[in-house]
Amino acid sequence: MKAYLNRRYSFPASHRLHSAELSEEQNRAAYGKCNNPYGHGHNYTIEVTVSGQVDAHTGMVCDLVELDSFVQRHVLSVFDHADLNTLPEFAATVPTSENLGLAIQRIFANAFRAAKVEHIRLEETSNNLFDFAM
Amino acid sequence: MKAYLNRRYSFPASHRLHSAELSEEQNRAAYGKCNNPYGHGHNYTIEVTVSGQVDAHTGMVCDLVELDSFVQRHVLSVFDHADLNTLPEFAATVPTSENLGLAIQRIFANAFRAAKVEHIRLEETSNNLFDFAM
Amino acid sequence: MKAYLNRRYSFPASHRLHSAELSEEQNRAAYGKCNNPYGHGHNYTIEVTVSGQVDAHTGMVCDLVELDSFVQRHVLSVFDHADLNTLPEFAATVPTSENLGLAIQRIFANAFRAAKVEHIRLEETSNNLFDFAM
Amino acid sequence: MKAYLNRRYSFPASHRLHSAELSEEQNRAAYGKCNNPYGHGHNYTIEVTVSGQVDAHTGMVCDLVELDSFVQRHVLSVFDHADLNTLPEFAATVPTSENLGLAIQRIFANAFRAAKVEHIRLEETSNNLFDFAM
Amino acid sequence: MKAYLNRRYSFPASHRLHSAELSEEQNRAAYGKCNNPYGHGHNYTIEVTVSGQVDAHTGMVCDLVELDSFVQRHVLSVFDHADLNTLPEFAATVPTSENLGLAIQRIFANAFRAAKVEHIRLEETSNNLFDFAM
Amino acid sequence: MKAYLNRRYSFPASHRLHSAELSEEQNRAAYGKCNNPYGHGHNYTIEVTVSGQVDAHTGMVCDLVELDSFVQRHVLSVFDHADLNTLPEFAATVPTSENLGLAIQRIFANAFRAAKVEHIRLEETSNNLFDFAM
Repeated sequence: MKAYLNRRYSFPASHRLHSAELSEEQNRAAYGKCNNPYGHGHNYTIEVTVSGQVDAHTGMVCDLVELDSFVQRHVLSVFDHADLNTLPEFAATVPTSENLGLAIQRIFANAFRAAKVEHIRLEETSNNLFDFAM
Repeated sequence: MKAYLNRRYSFPASHRLHSAELSEEQNRAAYGKCNNPYGHGHNYTIEVTVSGQVDAHTGMVCDLVELDSFVQRHVLSVFDHADLNTLPEFAATVPTSENLGLAIQRIFANAFRAAKVEHIRLEETSNNLFDFAM
Repeated sequence: MKAYLNRRYSFPASHRLHSAELSEEQNRAAYGKCNNPYGHGHNYTIEVTVSGQVDAHTGMVCDLVELDSFVQRHVLSVFDHADLNTLPEFAATVPTSENLGLAIQRIFANAFRAAKVEHIRLEETSNNLFDFAM
Repeated sequence: MKAYLNRRYSFPASHRLHSAELSEEQNRAAYGKCNNPYGHGHNYTIEVTVSGQVDAHTGMVCDLVELDSFVQRHVLSVFDHADLNTLPEFAATVPTSENLGLAIQRIFANAFRAAKVEHIRLEETSNNLFDFAM
Repeated sequence: MKAYLNRRYSFPASHRLHSAELSEEQNRAAYGKCNNPYGHGHNYTIEVTVSGQVDAHTGMVCDLVELDSFVQRHVLSVFDHADLNTLPEFAATVPTSENLGLAIQRIFANAFRAAKVEHIRLEETSNNLFDFAM
Repeated sequence: MKAYLNRRYSFPASHRLHSAELSEEQNRAAYGKCNNPYGHGHNYTIEVTVSGQVDAHTGMVCDLVELDSFVQRHVLSVFDHADLNTLPEFAATVPTSENLGLAIQRIFANAFRAAKVEHIRLEETSNNLFDFAM
């Protein structure tokens, strides 16, 4: 009687892809237009997948109030309407969607206890989606 | 030469989340607005995933006529345009999307023989999706 | 320097299409499965279109805080997670999407003053959409 | 034998909503989170509507090669992967979607001659869309 | 108390864009890849907009059974799963989306009497949409 | 520090489902309307999933320029705007979506070396999607 809940949240943010460890030319080759000075932005969507037994009383696998409140306090409060390059999370790494997804994955791994987190998906655009298994 | 077919079907239905085993206060805490008296509704979408070898003659993994006809007779005839709370399937359980998905999973497990069913997905809204492995 | 803002809001609700002025047979003929006893539901989406001059200082046609707050207090507080048949708005009329849209149109016409409302769209499903000019 | 063609193009960009003519407090009140320092971003979509007689020989209202090439040279080359606040177009105005749409409207009005432009739509998110009649 | 109903229908079909009145070179210039020999295809969607007074008894602007049945008999029976180039409708014209939309517009203008038809939209892809006012 | 990238590409094409090994009656039974003479078409979407360690310098799992260029040279150049029945890939098999997906799977398996390919998805319509594990 196991079920998986996938729940989606959206937020806009901006980033510039530029690595201090690469030359200007290497940066341009690696990131193309995403290396433009000043950066650009996206409407990101996160999909969180949690799993569990369906509770016999409530008929649910996860308390949505707890999940929503966790995402609000630990994820959206950090990344929503942010310039990712200015965040401590990206002081040492480039704010690609891969690294943004890994940061969100760490936030869930470190602190979410209301259900088993199975999977994080980060959508950068509708044609560019990133998955992270826990 | 294995392939997976995912096929989607939509239907509207209504439900009210209310458990006879919980107090009024517990019901309100567990379900929030979904506990409103009289209920509300959704446009649900089911995605059925079946798998199999690709047939050397037809080039297909599953006869779509059989799959569509099964869904029509065993799933849509029961849940399409229904008030879920009034169905025998939910006499003893709350019609959450988790329990609705489990009910659909049981229908496939008990009676569908035209291909191997791998997975059922139930979309309650575009931001709330539930998965059930067979 | 005129612009139109279209802003979308979603909410689930249930309804049963049944007219006291029609016979059982006429009800069934007019509404088909939507006449099922106990009703069913939808994820409705409203799209509100307002227009105005783009403000030279703020660069906006409408204060979104005012629009969102109006929709929350006057529309979502009434229809979100509701059984439409039980509302006073539908004491004398059938809660079709046409009549639901007209009710929302009246709410805006009577009380929204922050910008000119041009148009209301109500989406019942992604294949059934209703428009109302103000 | 008139027809309208709507053609859509997408691009990411970033912006910060902040007006030099408003106090810090007024900026925060007018723009909320969109006034965050350093800005944020969106995946914007433009929909251009052109109209014309359906050509008796080609069966088309507009040469798509001309339209695509115009959008590439005059719109995407300016706004794609840009920080809108750094562009000359927004030296004197705040880069809201209203002002971004007006800028795109001016570009078409000034220079597109291959068909009659009727309408520009700018989608900031799937719930926030802006229209501009020519 | 007027309302507009927009109702959507989908069907796949194939076409090749090639005009007998143009040279090979002109055909290639006008249609690009759409001029490839043997043709290609699309999942088309039609959106039909009808208007009328909301009926005081039924709460509806149009009998959906009549509309669906008309579309089935007069539109889908002709174009669904068809090779457009082989149809009499395109014996003398190129099956562009413009001409396909005009053909559907004529079908409604000639024979649909259950409500006032205001508008036909034909979607060739999600980025290429065509409108036809009646 | 592993991540998965899903990247999507769209192209229109046409096909007719007809097997030389089946009788006319068997063909009609197996394929229904998809067996119509002359064929029909779809807007296909491919989603390619690749995986890898997130590179410590670039923050990426796969060079997008390499992936896009591979898809352009080896997949889109073959199938985009094509009549699938006329291609050598389908000389001996019926161009169902299952066989089209297997053909694309083979192309990646044989020649793509820039990252580990995990999965191919082929969308025939939004309600008919096919998956292929590598």
